Amino acid sequence: MEKELHLKLTVRLYTDDNQRCFGPGIATLLERVEAHHSLRSAAASMEMAYSKAWRIIRTAEAVFGCKMLSSTIGGQHGGGAVLTPEAHRLLDAYRAYESSVRQFAEDRFEESFHFYRELKKTAPPED
Amino acid sequence: MEKELHLKLTVRLYTDDNQRCFGPGIATLLERVEAHHSLRSAAASMEMAYSKAWRIIRTAEAVFGCKMLSSTIGGQHGGGAVLTPEAHRLLDAYRAYESSVRQFAEDRFEESFHFYRELKKTAPPED
Repeated sequence: MEKELHLKLTVRLYTDDNQRCFGPGIATLLERVEAHHSLRSAAASMEMAYSKAWRIIRTAEAVFGCKMLSSTIGGQHGGGAVLTPEAHRLLDAYRAYESSVRQFAEDRFEESFHFYRELKKTAPPED
Repeated sequence: MEKELHLKLTVRLYTDDNQRCFGPGIATLLERVEAHHSLRSAAASMEMAYSKAWRIIRTAEAVFGCKMLSSTIGGQHGGGAVLTPEAHRLLDAYRAYESSVRQFAEDRFEESFHFYRELKKTAPPED
């Protein structure tokens, strides 16, 4: 049975002193905060330790120089966490950027690796 | 002190049953085999366990249906391992592809994240 090849692309942002500050983990975490209105629930929903979720948020806040989450008290959701406008802007910029890079990469994938199928025909594995 | 943002991009190939089969690890490993003429030395040079190096090579061989390494006996390098033509082709295709995707991503990075500097000015972190 012929296996197809697929691309997995990861986009991460680092500072110039090699501190990881934004990537798929925090992006998903922020999206889950939007959905759950709680950092604790967001972390739990992706099986991430609450302490790790806090650390990721704190690191991004230090690098970007702004708060990522703000607390709401009472109201429609009975209090909890929401994203700040700055966190929204970062998240949107990251997702748009990641999506454009992925589109470019996907468009060139077949052309770059199509020889894979011929490899299998011309060079059967020795055993 | 203002920190600059940098991109780190990772390109990995998976099969449709989600088996990782090619990426930065095996690419570097194959390049080190070329340099050292030995899988053991190649693995050691990147602080990778020899057993892991073998596993990575075996997995790629199973997916791509071809040998990655061939043994040489005696000769200029006193025996050892060299890349098969198929491994060369894969490695070259991967590096060329990775490089074109990275170039595209780098070209759009500043435009996508330049607002980062303004974020720091407009939203000083509370503490």
